[in-house]
Amino acid sequence: MKVALVGIGKIAIDQHVPAIANSPDWELAATVSRKGSVEGVEAFDDFAAFLSARPDVSVVSLCLPPVPRFDYAEAALLAGRHVMLEKPPGATLAEVHALQALAAAKGLTLYTTWHSRMALAVAPAKAWLADKRILKAHITWREDVRKWHPGQDWVFEPGGMGVFDPGINALSILTEILPAPVHLTAASLEFPSNRQTPIGAKLTFSGNVTADFDWRQTGPQTWDIEVETDHGPMALRMGGNVLEINGKPAGGENTIMGEYPALYARMAELVARGASEVDLAPMVHVADALTLGRRIETEAFDF
Amino acid sequence: MKVALVGIGKIAIDQHVPAIANSPDWELAATVSRKGSVEGVEAFDDFAAFLSARPDVSVVSLCLPPVPRFDYAEAALLAGRHVMLEKPPGATLAEVHALQALAAAKGLTLYTTWHSRMALAVAPAKAWLADKRILKAHITWREDVRKWHPGQDWVFEPGGMGVFDPGINALSILTEILPAPVHLTAASLEFPSNRQTPIGAKLTFSGNVTADFDWRQTGPQTWDIEVETDHGPMALRMGGNVLEINGKPAGGENTIMGEYPALYARMAELVARGASEVDLAPMVHVADALTLGRRIETEAFDF
Repeated sequence: MKVALVGIGKIAIDQHVPAIANSPDWELAATVSRKGSVEGVEAFDDFAAFLSARPDVSVVSLCLPPVPRFDYAEAALLAGRHVMLEKPPGATLAEVHALQALAAAKGLTLYTTWHSRMALAVAPAKAWLADKRILKAHITWREDVRKWHPGQDWVFEPGGMGVFDPGINALSILTEILPAPVHLTAASLEFPSNRQTPIGAKLTFSGNVTADFDWRQTGPQTWDIEVETDHGPMALRMGGNVLEINGKPAGGENTIMGEYPALYARMAELVARGASEVDLAPMVHVADALTLGRRIETEAFDF
Repeated sequence: MKVALVGIGKIAIDQHVPAIANSPDWELAATVSRKGSVEGVEAFDDFAAFLSARPDVSVVSLCLPPVPRFDYAEAALLAGRHVMLEKPPGATLAEVHALQALAAAKGLTLYTTWHSRMALAVAPAKAWLADKRILKAHITWREDVRKWHPGQDWVFEPGGMGVFDPGINALSILTEILPAPVHLTAASLEFPSNRQTPIGAKLTFSGNVTADFDWRQTGPQTWDIEVETDHGPMALRMGGNVLEINGKPAGGENTIMGEYPALYARMAELVARGASEVDLAPMVHVADALTLGRRIETEAFDF
């Protein structure tokens, strides 16, 4: 199947392009971007021009930042294309509801991807937790924004989500592996005095679940989810790629497919089945944190 | 049917108690409140004590502020009672999703009320707009917080919603009357320097829809929704109670029932039918505004 990539930035080059290149299902047939392109692939800088020039490309994968994404997704669906959305799937919940309704009305596939759910140890962790009682869970997601988003000021602009940009990856795993949903009960959010989105967040959920997100961690980076159960502790480390049960490495039924290859395999399956997959649970938790959170002003941040 | 009122504050006394007293469907059988009570009605100050003492009361109506409300709603559903929620239905979206799942699992009625949707002219406005093309709409919702929430500091605490406490009434009407959903595209929010929630908000939605919420308006209060259509202008004034079409008063099929009597009539019908009504659209717009909004600090506010 032919796919077009829209928004040729860091995530497209690092992840989407190689995942498509190595997939038996997909052919990268076009790119749309004001700046980037991919060698050997037809490049457009205007989305409407792409849509009219390439009716043969039935799937569009959007890797733009969340704020501009809706207009592209809507135009693609109106032009009869299936749509795959990078995380988070939009700048607002209501716009994704609108896309969901439009895709359903047009009989097209809409897939709100959450790449971290495809990390190696997430499926085995979910399977192990399925029949356990959760006593407590804690997320530690601490990384260095200067390393992962160098100079990307949009992450601190309204809609850029701040530390929830990585934190939503943790929430996408949490909402996947827990046997029952939780809801936020309190949050404190640290906003740099010169920025519009938080750089740190501490979240408390029902069911004794807590999270610590921080974007100021230099040195070793931490992406851990630790769960205490009635059958002992389980931990997911390295962003969902390493599983420990009772403190020991646990293999589980790992696949050797990477996160983005797994997303594209899933998209191929959804299109083949004529189905959509729209799960907003991670985004709802972020909206809830920004609604209910207590704001704390902290020192100015510059890249 | 017997109903218990939980949270005997201003809104309970002003609206819920008279609506129940004048209803042919309902009997106020108990109150639960740390402070208030209603003469001639059994008063509890502990919710668990009420639940065990009064299994004959099958419906619980919650008028507490949104933050503590979830625990009561969950306990009521777990005890087999139908639940009616004041607006907004919770402090977070996820907690209302959890209540919805619980009510469905237990076969109980959950009703997320939006009292402004029951204002006299809302149904006729919706009927008139149903076959029109909307060119533009603007909400002006400007009132004096000192008059309507005197000394109620909780409205400025996290989860208290600030100016969205009245603004969500406008959004509940907007989402009811428009023939197709809209989504937020931008917002600016004015936060007093000493408060956690906004005192003013300007919202921009898709479809040329805008809103101006302000809690600092002394003198005449304004609750207007003005819509331009391909068949001329329509306005809802006085919080949905007055309809104008092409600048002239329009009667419509008004009922003479007030907002809260209409909510209780609807709850009686839902319980009788074994149905629930859970609509989070107004709350999604508020969460979206707090997620996407640009924050502007403004002067400190004290009652």
